[in-house]
Amino acid sequence: MVDISASQVKDLRAVTGAGVLDCKKALQETGGDLDKAAEFLRTQGLADAQKKAGRSTNEGLIDSYIHMNGKIGVLLEINCETDFVARTEQFQSLAHDLCMQVAAADPSYVDREEVPEEIVQQERRILMDQAKGEGKPEEIAEKIVQGRLEKFFSQICLVDQAFIKDPDRTVEELIKEQVATLGENIQVCRFTRYALGESD
Amino acid sequence: MVDISASQVKDLRAVTGAGVLDCKKALQETGGDLDKAAEFLRTQGLADAQKKAGRSTNEGLIDSYIHMNGKIGVLLEINCETDFVARTEQFQSLAHDLCMQVAAADPSYVDREEVPEEIVQQERRILMDQAKGEGKPEEIAEKIVQGRLEKFFSQICLVDQAFIKDPDRTVEELIKEQVATLGENIQVCRFTRYALGESD
Repeated sequence: MVDISASQVKDLRAVTGAGVLDCKKALQETGGDLDKAAEFLRTQGLADAQKKAGRSTNEGLIDSYIHMNGKIGVLLEINCETDFVARTEQFQSLAHDLCMQVAAADPSYVDREEVPEEIVQQERRILMDQAKGEGKPEEIAEKIVQGRLEKFFSQICLVDQAFIKDPDRTVEELIKEQVATLGENIQVCRFTRYALGESD
Repeated sequence: MVDISASQVKDLRAVTGAGVLDCKKALQETGGDLDKAAEFLRTQGLADAQKKAGRSTNEGLIDSYIHMNGKIGVLLEINCETDFVARTEQFQSLAHDLCMQVAAADPSYVDREEVPEEIVQQERRILMDQAKGEGKPEEIAEKIVQGRLEKFFSQICLVDQAFIKDPDRTVEELIKEQVATLGENIQVCRFTRYALGESD
């Protein structure tokens, strides 16, 4: 096994924010290659996030964001496992980013599980009529509808939206990166968005 | 008519925040008595508030308040007639006070008109059973129930609550004072309160 120096570990930690032992292991797995080791950790982190996804989250933060001098406001609850993590700068920064995301991108639901079944079915029907109206045969239409339904979710579900500060990532990926960095399950619980004059 | 000096008008303005002409008139009506003039303006202001109550309110602010390091959060929309008033320090201060009121006193509704009829009737039945159980005859029980229903509204309706910073006033009175001072109709549109970990 190739020797990994303390300075390589330090460099990798600086780039990824991962723990010392994880960094050492990643560098060993990739023969000391910094970029490959960072990619290894990223994949590992996403896998770890999956494993953590079942852990209960009773702590966290309520955060808010007022935009445009009081024309738009957001309230958001984001949960994690311990109060210690809730008080970290990274978690607070994530909460703030999510508030701004809600303000700017105006999602209607946290995730697709929240979308009422009748709305999903209605959208599916509309998209299917559309695809058939374009003259597509049944199985092609089905694939097209699946694709357009994904796009529908990516517009209305917070976690499926492109992160406004970095549209190459989804909000879900943003959250999973923090799950990896902070080592705890993180869930967006709920949010509310007010736009001045636009109540029922 | 007694002569009113500029310095009397200035004193009265400092105490009440009302306009110069209103202060002059109030002092003339009360023979130059500062306290009576302040009371005159207060009553006039409440009457004016009633007259303004029908005017439409399309401007205003969204405000928020985060309490106890993220354990409680409030989002609130308060409306007035013009953007000019919405930007005044008094209006912003009122919005802030109302956010803190919601955080601390946890109302469920803006006003009693919002309380669903079945909840009011259910509460009335419970209170009536209670009063009769105390052995009160029908008409006395009715009066007691009315009184206890008022107490019920004063607990769950924001505008009927005692203002936490000055419990001798209700929130409604607080708002009416600002209607008088700022000269526009003011309405609390809606609010949301989150307490960490207490979502459905």
